Amino acid sequence: MGSDICSLTASKIANQIALGTLTAEAVMVEHLRRIKARDFAVKAFIDFDADRPLRLARAADRQPEKGILHGVPFAVKDIVDTLDLPTTWGSPIYAGCRMPRNASCVEMLLRAGAIPIGKTVTTEFAYFSPGPTRNPHNLAHTPGGSSSGSAAAVADGMAALGLGSQTAASLTRPAAYCGVFGYKASQGSIDLQGVMGLATSLDSLGFLARGIDDLILARAALCGTPVPNDLPANSNTQTIALLKGPHWAEADQPTQDAIIEAGEILLAAGVSVTDLQCPQEFNQLSEYHKIIMAFEVARARQFEFRHHPTEMSSAFYKLVETGLATSRADYEVALAARDAGEVVLANLLSSFDAIMTPAAPSSAPAGIESTGDPLFSRLWTLMRVPTVTIPFGRDVANLPLAFQLVGGFGADQNLLAISRDIANHLRVSCELPEL
Amino acid sequence: MGSDICSLTASKIANQIALGTLTAEAVMVEHLRRIKARDFAVKAFIDFDADRPLRLARAADRQPEKGILHGVPFAVKDIVDTLDLPTTWGSPIYAGCRMPRNASCVEMLLRAGAIPIGKTVTTEFAYFSPGPTRNPHNLAHTPGGSSSGSAAAVADGMAALGLGSQTAASLTRPAAYCGVFGYKASQGSIDLQGVMGLATSLDSLGFLARGIDDLILARAALCGTPVPNDLPANSNTQTIALLKGPHWAEADQPTQDAIIEAGEILLAAGVSVTDLQCPQEFNQLSEYHKIIMAFEVARARQFEFRHHPTEMSSAFYKLVETGLATSRADYEVALAARDAGEVVLANLLSSFDAIMTPAAPSSAPAGIESTGDPLFSRLWTLMRVPTVTIPFGRDVANLPLAFQLVGGFGADQNLLAISRDIANHLRVSCELPEL
Repeated sequence: MGSDICSLTASKIANQIALGTLTAEAVMVEHLRRIKARDFAVKAFIDFDADRPLRLARAADRQPEKGILHGVPFAVKDIVDTLDLPTTWGSPIYAGCRMPRNASCVEMLLRAGAIPIGKTVTTEFAYFSPGPTRNPHNLAHTPGGSSSGSAAAVADGMAALGLGSQTAASLTRPAAYCGVFGYKASQGSIDLQGVMGLATSLDSLGFLARGIDDLILARAALCGTPVPNDLPANSNTQTIALLKGPHWAEADQPTQDAIIEAGEILLAAGVSVTDLQCPQEFNQLSEYHKIIMAFEVARARQFEFRHHPTEMSSAFYKLVETGLATSRADYEVALAARDAGEVVLANLLSSFDAIMTPAAPSSAPAGIESTGDPLFSRLWTLMRVPTVTIPFGRDVANLPLAFQLVGGFGADQNLLAISRDIANHLRVSCELPEL
Repeated sequence: MGSDICSLTASKIANQIALGTLTAEAVMVEHLRRIKARDFAVKAFIDFDADRPLRLARAADRQPEKGILHGVPFAVKDIVDTLDLPTTWGSPIYAGCRMPRNASCVEMLLRAGAIPIGKTVTTEFAYFSPGPTRNPHNLAHTPGGSSSGSAAAVADGMAALGLGSQTAASLTRPAAYCGVFGYKASQGSIDLQGVMGLATSLDSLGFLARGIDDLILARAALCGTPVPNDLPANSNTQTIALLKGPHWAEADQPTQDAIIEAGEILLAAGVSVTDLQCPQEFNQLSEYHKIIMAFEVARARQFEFRHHPTEMSSAFYKLVETGLATSRADYEVALAARDAGEVVLANLLSSFDAIMTPAAPSSAPAGIESTGDPLFSRLWTLMRVPTVTIPFGRDVANLPLAFQLVGGFGADQNLLAISRDIANHLRVSCELPEL
């Protein structure tokens, strides 16, 4: 029963607790057992105290009213403030730091009955310098970053849901590498109170989960809005644009093959899949993303740069230096290019339900010295649109592959409904790694 | 000499320190003396320790390189995180709270050589419930809110520059009531790391000062970009639209008279001033602003609402309840109305250098139980555009009057240059209140 419970999706856990066929305590006990058995190797959590989540689970069982995520253990990326757990931003500068309140996203999940099981590893300041986390599907490989711990915890069944964030590819890439679903919200549409900001024009929240319904519930909880009951139960996705994008040649063969195969399955299922020419406005957006990110990071992280330079990785220090050396004129050119790209994208999305495009250049690279390349997400993050990462297929090393779906700005709910359709057509299921 | 130094603008202080005709220490000593003499009555600061800013001023004098705001004492609104000073958000929930770092805006001002002189009173969570601050021009009147303390401190010469923020009218209104210049940045254009968020679509930072040049320097410091040297030294403002706006009838006679008189002076100076019909798209925007604000505040302040309801004012508690009762559909209608308004506004601003419109319904109301009505700012805040408040004239009770200038989204620097022109034409000068 133990690993059975840990393999349940968040929506199934919430449903069984609501029906009374499972208790929050039983769910928590099994997840804590899984953490004890596995996290010495995976290292998804920054520190761990089993008593607190167990106490919260028992309290949840005593509540007569059940929230939409009642009793669901969720992992909190360590750039998100929590009252009861340390918040260190993946930086030694903030080792052991405690914040005086919960981030609004944590509080909204608590309000829905979910239970924070622990804080999960992020790269330093949600940028590149990796933490100790390993990919649960193969411990010799990176889980991706920066939402490394949340992705690994969810993939491994140590949490049913993970809070993550994205400024470049910090949700999409770990979701893809760890073989779980990832949802990044429309930028600016979710309150970021208590979430460390990296680059104000780019930062967004999102979730990692083993089911699309989990993402739908989690989004409703986060937004404090009812679960939409008018989501199509059966397929009504009509038109998908397969966009190989400006970096297609940099995707390896298994990645290219997987997305093409997914397109063929959808076509066979009656979905119109159109091979789309990449608009030229998109070609330089990844470079513009880098300019905006460096410029904004340099301002956001001045405190650490000025007062704790020796406790910063050289990669991060250089990013701040690059940002300070970037001219306002170059920054504004990049913003204008984003604006132009957004117009083209909105126009494209008026003809298609979603865009289907690679999520990462390959499966999780070997080693944990790097979290991989954010290349395939920079442009979408820049254009502020919601994305959903769909795991699909494995490579010869049996590591997960994935693609992503891109929706219109603000149309997150619709994108999630389409993603569910597509995941159903492709019979995606996220199995826990074998122990 | 003492009150002479306190009456200097931030740009004059920085200039004299750079030239060596003043020291940062002398500047700080006089401002601290002014605080000691006046703040028992004005109550702009939340608590006060004279040693720390004095020590920082002496250190500033030892630095060979001078920043663009070197030695300028600035006031920090108490919703902004500071390492060395308490951060309480105007709420008893956070009495004595200390944060582990400076907000990025504070750090950017430090980087430019400015010195935080102290934390200033905000209303509770930057909403309506007032703190103890009084209007330095007449202690029986409100200074406005929520940037109450920063506005009062700058108006009274206890600080040369004040950091403020705006979600409805929290900069514009206290600037108007206290007779100082106020600048609110384009929403989303400034990093808000470490600034309490109230409503994510609306929150913006800005400054209070006694000179437009101060605002230009402060913006450059905040953005980490050079002071523009191509700003027109002489007038080149050509066209101003005088927009009486949807709430004109709710402005009292002295307010109406002052803005009309200002328009006539500008006309006489050769500026084209056009009386503009209010676009119908603007008529309901103040109501839509309320909907968006309540919806977003309810999410942002869930932690305090759920865990500290009895330490919250009933006004704030009700705001959260209103926001929770607001449907997602109503919220989205409001966002769409904002989007439509923004298109109309951008179109208008393609024909005019700026829009001139009332800043508040009247001069500062009597009493400190209320901080006055945000009516005249809600729509501009909603449309995310930069605004500059220009003090102009006095009413029969000798209380300051003001109007505001509205510029195009992202064109903050241009709006500040135009504001300088207009303030010059109108010979605006912010005198300290007589002791």
